[in-house]
Amino acid sequence: MSENTVRRPLIMGLAGFGTVGGGLARLVEENAHLIRRRTGRDIVIKKVLVRNATKTRQTPLPQGAELTTDPSALTDDPTIDVVVELMGGIDKARELIDSALEKGKHVVTANKALLAEEGLALFQKAAQKGRILRYEASVAGAVPVVEALKESLAGNRVQSLMGILNGTSNYILSEMTSNGLDFDIALKQAQEKGYAEADPTLDIDGFDAAHKLTLLIRLAYGVHYPYTALSVQGIRGLSRQDIRFAREFGYRIKLIGQVREVLRDDNEGKDSLARLEAGVFPALVHHTYLLARVGGVYNAVRVNANAAGALFFHGQGAGDLPTAGAVLADLMAVARDERPNNTGFAENDLPQALIVPSEEWRSCYYVRTMVEDAPGVLRDISGCMAAEGISVAQMIQKADEGQGVPLVFMTHETTAQAMSTALQKAEDAGLLKEAPVYYRIL
Amino acid sequence: MSENTVRRPLIMGLAGFGTVGGGLARLVEENAHLIRRRTGRDIVIKKVLVRNATKTRQTPLPQGAELTTDPSALTDDPTIDVVVELMGGIDKARELIDSALEKGKHVVTANKALLAEEGLALFQKAAQKGRILRYEASVAGAVPVVEALKESLAGNRVQSLMGILNGTSNYILSEMTSNGLDFDIALKQAQEKGYAEADPTLDIDGFDAAHKLTLLIRLAYGVHYPYTALSVQGIRGLSRQDIRFAREFGYRIKLIGQVREVLRDDNEGKDSLARLEAGVFPALVHHTYLLARVGGVYNAVRVNANAAGALFFHGQGAGDLPTAGAVLADLMAVARDERPNNTGFAENDLPQALIVPSEEWRSCYYVRTMVEDAPGVLRDISGCMAAEGISVAQMIQKADEGQGVPLVFMTHETTAQAMSTALQKAEDAGLLKEAPVYYRIL
Repeated sequence: MSENTVRRPLIMGLAGFGTVGGGLARLVEENAHLIRRRTGRDIVIKKVLVRNATKTRQTPLPQGAELTTDPSALTDDPTIDVVVELMGGIDKARELIDSALEKGKHVVTANKALLAEEGLALFQKAAQKGRILRYEASVAGAVPVVEALKESLAGNRVQSLMGILNGTSNYILSEMTSNGLDFDIALKQAQEKGYAEADPTLDIDGFDAAHKLTLLIRLAYGVHYPYTALSVQGIRGLSRQDIRFAREFGYRIKLIGQVREVLRDDNEGKDSLARLEAGVFPALVHHTYLLARVGGVYNAVRVNANAAGALFFHGQGAGDLPTAGAVLADLMAVARDERPNNTGFAENDLPQALIVPSEEWRSCYYVRTMVEDAPGVLRDISGCMAAEGISVAQMIQKADEGQGVPLVFMTHETTAQAMSTALQKAEDAGLLKEAPVYYRIL
Repeated sequence: MSENTVRRPLIMGLAGFGTVGGGLARLVEENAHLIRRRTGRDIVIKKVLVRNATKTRQTPLPQGAELTTDPSALTDDPTIDVVVELMGGIDKARELIDSALEKGKHVVTANKALLAEEGLALFQKAAQKGRILRYEASVAGAVPVVEALKESLAGNRVQSLMGILNGTSNYILSEMTSNGLDFDIALKQAQEKGYAEADPTLDIDGFDAAHKLTLLIRLAYGVHYPYTALSVQGIRGLSRQDIRFAREFGYRIKLIGQVREVLRDDNEGKDSLARLEAGVFPALVHHTYLLARVGGVYNAVRVNANAAGALFFHGQGAGDLPTAGAVLADLMAVARDERPNNTGFAENDLPQALIVPSEEWRSCYYVRTMVEDAPGVLRDISGCMAAEGISVAQMIQKADEGQGVPLVFMTHETTAQAMSTALQKAEDAGLLKEAPVYYRIL
């Protein structure tokens, strides 16, 4: 190290001192030697912004750090080079980041909700000020998928990306699958283990995954896909029965965030923007896929790209140290004086995404319903499908369960529109004894 | 894109126009729009260096590119910003890269052998000249593990890294496993499919994986681990029988490149260099591990790190477009004027690795041998193990196969030294009817 002139430390203001903030402080201390070897600098936490300065904390404050409840103590301090935002929430986080960028500071954040819902203005502000705005930890925790899309896959046209982006719902589905638990029991268990919040809406209704997917779409395609335009379906109330039937066909049910380009011809997407299908939904994943093997709170992302082919990334999607490690990587990029490459695109005004309406998406489907154990029912249901151009690939009729016979089938590829019309017609014709449940097959 | 001033193109000299070089030319053309959107620049291939200018080529030369057989046409051209070395081999590639750096050009290469065997001087030259030397494609093709170690995991202490780094040998092992082929047949099939060279030594004897491992060790630990100091064992002549027996225990046999830090106490490795175990060897991988699921010519890397925990990367390790895509990502980093971060460490003189001799490595073992079907043999063999402090975890004795009884067992953790001593003693005592075969268990 002798030949290197020692550079002045990178001075950091840390906003938020919860699990991840505490983890980051620990890592900065524990890995100090490594940080110095890798960047030639020290990282010093000068100030820590908290809501309540008198609360007792699990992690001791970083040595020499000053506690404050005033955001401007960070943004107005001319010695602070970079502000790390780990407070969460929208309004205060946006104000802090905006003000930090305005004052010429670099910013590192893990705030997926903010970047998904209101990121546009922040990316523009960062570009205007020539500052770094990094957010590796905001998607899939320790899994470096932000970096992969911005840098490693930069020369690839991304054809599709699908991921297990929410650890809580994946934990619930894994427990339902491995231990045959009901949804409510598995959710309660996740809450007891600290994997799910008291109000689990963000996680189990797919909104957290949708936040992350919004960021991934921007990184993969360089377009602004409004978060509110995403089609989002969660796993609330998903039935143990469907997990079991899916298994019999060789599939696992996973909560998937997916985007893919839909090309009308070979040239589309090459010189212009492709149309995108994007959404979050429970889907059947064949057991031979690596995605089907993702258990517990793990996250994973599979990218299909025109040069790389299929790439698969797997790791911890949450937790104090995994998330803090991703934040620290971003900080070290700032310490190395990397040039801003915030969105992964040179242009600042990213165009609006061309959105394929979800009714038009093409997919194979799994369908479960209850029918009467009567001659002709299967024929009539197949007829409803055929009338919409849907062909049935496999069908299982189960033993009579008292109130009817569970009928499970899988279709060849069709549109969401055709699927819902066909099932509606079957229902209207009195063929189904309860509302059908249907999921896409990946 | 309107608000960005269009920057002048990045001018490239391409050395080597084989599979990967041709793939790169195709990609640069096909993804031109994307390259411009992402970097704000065009990439132009100005000159192509080949050995034989009159040979007919599968891929047409890039439009406007000039063919040359003279390396100095690339390195002496003041308009060329970056030289891409895809010739392979050691001496000529080293001369070209050295000369390009000397003349102030950036360099992108996929040459693992060169960087493993003689990279030190090139990294020093690049540092001295302040130039970028990038090599994402040199390890695991499209799998962005170089970038992951240099940037995404920069804030992590890497505890271990293990990978399937050679697609050819993985293809052979996969075929032996799935289709029960003998090694020789599987090798021949790999050669017919173009996955293996006529002389398959580099691939099947572990040297190619060892080249890649050398680079990964440098990236993960910032040390110089001489390639020649690596313990390397390939898969040549690996028996179908062992694959079958391993399967019965729930394992797959994979050719693994591994490095891990060995800590004498909690503080070692924190403020100083850790001692490293590193080598390439066939190993038993439990079927529940993602690594066990890596089939065919795919590559995969698993990293354990002190913040991230376990990360797993999977993708195509070779092939024209996957490799070219990784080269293009490096080129685009050059086009973005990224600062050199060639080794991932600020210091230029990387220290020598502290090497744990392979006899001291601790591991569980799989052992197969032939014994006489006589009373007391098992007791005597167990005795040889026990005398070296090795305890046997599981043992299967097979039916008599004519020349004796195959005896297969797995041990608890022990050293390589103890294992070889115990087996030598059993052989000396006349307990074994043929030389034992033994492999590590991951």
